[in-house]
Amino acid sequence: MKRIIGILAMLLLVCHVYAQIVYHDAANFPLLGKATNYAGARYERFPDSLKNISRAPLWNLSRNSAGMAIRFRSNSTRIAVKWKTLFDNHMNHMTDVGVKGLDLYCLQKNGSWRFVNSARPAQKMTQTTIIENMKPEEREFMLYLPLYDGVSSLSIGIDSLSVIGQPMVDCPVREKPVVFYGTSILQGGCASRPGMAHTNIISRRLNRECINLGFSGNALLDLEVAEMMAEIDASVFVLDFAPNASVEQIKERMAVFYQTIRDKHPKVPILFIEDPVFTHALFDEMIAHEVEDRNRAVNEVFNTLKKKGEKNMYLVRSSKMLGEDGEATVDGVHFTDLGMMRYADLVCPVIRRFCKL
Amino acid sequence: MKRIIGILAMLLLVCHVYAQIVYHDAANFPLLGKATNYAGARYERFPDSLKNISRAPLWNLSRNSAGMAIRFRSNSTRIAVKWKTLFDNHMNHMTDVGVKGLDLYCLQKNGSWRFVNSARPAQKMTQTTIIENMKPEEREFMLYLPLYDGVSSLSIGIDSLSVIGQPMVDCPVREKPVVFYGTSILQGGCASRPGMAHTNIISRRLNRECINLGFSGNALLDLEVAEMMAEIDASVFVLDFAPNASVEQIKERMAVFYQTIRDKHPKVPILFIEDPVFTHALFDEMIAHEVEDRNRAVNEVFNTLKKKGEKNMYLVRSSKMLGEDGEATVDGVHFTDLGMMRYADLVCPVIRRFCKL
Repeated sequence: MKRIIGILAMLLLVCHVYAQIVYHDAANFPLLGKATNYAGARYERFPDSLKNISRAPLWNLSRNSAGMAIRFRSNSTRIAVKWKTLFDNHMNHMTDVGVKGLDLYCLQKNGSWRFVNSARPAQKMTQTTIIENMKPEEREFMLYLPLYDGVSSLSIGIDSLSVIGQPMVDCPVREKPVVFYGTSILQGGCASRPGMAHTNIISRRLNRECINLGFSGNALLDLEVAEMMAEIDASVFVLDFAPNASVEQIKERMAVFYQTIRDKHPKVPILFIEDPVFTHALFDEMIAHEVEDRNRAVNEVFNTLKKKGEKNMYLVRSSKMLGEDGEATVDGVHFTDLGMMRYADLVCPVIRRFCKL
Repeated sequence: MKRIIGILAMLLLVCHVYAQIVYHDAANFPLLGKATNYAGARYERFPDSLKNISRAPLWNLSRNSAGMAIRFRSNSTRIAVKWKTLFDNHMNHMTDVGVKGLDLYCLQKNGSWRFVNSARPAQKMTQTTIIENMKPEEREFMLYLPLYDGVSSLSIGIDSLSVIGQPMVDCPVREKPVVFYGTSILQGGCASRPGMAHTNIISRRLNRECINLGFSGNALLDLEVAEMMAEIDASVFVLDFAPNASVEQIKERMAVFYQTIRDKHPKVPILFIEDPVFTHALFDEMIAHEVEDRNRAVNEVFNTLKKKGEKNMYLVRSSKMLGEDGEATVDGVHFTDLGMMRYADLVCPVIRRFCKL
């Protein structure tokens, strides 16, 4: 009888230890999607040096962790997370998971990344299990951070008897990242979860780190952003500002913005992306004219640069960006996951062909 | 001088009248997606007669207007809406637009429906312009109602000098609708906007009214729902309950639920849909087993019915429902717009082939 009680007690203890989740600060693991190793907060996209230089709305958006991801490895049967958002933002045309949630992917044997599950935010501080009941095998993970909020603390939880460690493979490849500059859409509006922002889809498809410099409503060709981008040893720069910049701003700043990057990267490909033909432009004639005007301006500046002898430039046409069915946005402007996939379908082959990635 | 002032005053008056929006109660226009013309509230899916019969959670979900739409015609240059939700619901894995917003489509000359724009909910009562700056032409419109909330009042706003009227074309065709029964996914979780719930996509593709009897977490094969469905003069019944019903419930009730409909519709096709292979089933072994168990039970009951000589039945396999890339859900379970489109891609051809729609 004593022996049975002893065995039962031992079993209970094992189960209890097994059931415990131990949290590890995500600061111990590599962070992808950050422009440079500048001084400043870990999960933020501008260096502190821009605080008194950038316009306030742009600076505030740089506190959002769009496009960032933590890489780690674990043999745990479950992965949990505990994180605190900076602002506890909410938008009525985007899920909270996309705005301030987390999104876990796992590297498959064929070398591709596969969605595991998302972490749904409860409130400013959330603690939740993303996945459980997995076989206890070594796996490489990538955890995407919020698109429209910041992260002030983040821990990754694993079974107490399992291990968590540094990634064993350089995937996506971190050398010479692809650097994107753009608008709310580029920042990830309105992906259903962080992994579906198109820069994150493109990163997985190209197997290359991508840096997301999307600033909702604020891709106004601010030159300090070009200067910051020029510091990055990139494989390609993608400039997708047309939905925000006015015709005047495009005419005044597009060539200077380009030249600021070009001066430090004489041979690196620089792609420009036309303004999307927003799905409601079929009905709203003012929107249709605005899109035409902005794209005319982008084409004019692009052609002038070409005529001056600029090379390694490419302009991606937007006519087929959102497909033919008009279904790919939530509000005429912001891409759903359907629109994000279609953007990746359009832009990935261009990057591959033009940039030999 | 007097003449000029007179002309200016007249112009100002015209502009002012033009600028005014006049609201019309949506109760004046046809409502699609309602099972029968039963007694009860206009925008709700169960007749009052079920109030003391159905389980409370099921009854409460029947207050949601999933799959309903208003049809109207107007030559207004803009369309505005004013609506009040029943519950002011919010979910962290779905946009507020999908949960409690509105979604406008317009009939094109080629006979297909095109997304115009969505109405983003501000609070319980919202008043907003969906589209403006249109040419003043006669257009046929369809306004989808909230998927995860109810509507207690709804008005459609047009330019004061334009007209709004009854639809001139029976599109989607109202005779012999397609009737869907199912879960949270079928109710529209988690489409980005109401028009992207798969029953609404399928309705547009088939040009046939669809009736959405999706009840989040509550597709437990309650027999009063089968009895209500049996009252509908349908072209096809689609039974998609597997993600909610337990193995025991499937074994106990699936055949009875089927028979209740079949008794009143000896020759109408009845489709069963397998449980989707949830995207996280690749990692979570318990989920994978649960899906297998439920699909084994569905197949067993289906095959038993077949052996008994039942005809006009079809079982849609789920293995290819969500595609190959694992990207089509927001949380492993609930479909994003990508998943909704893939479901429609799978199920539409089956309905067309099997039901000759």
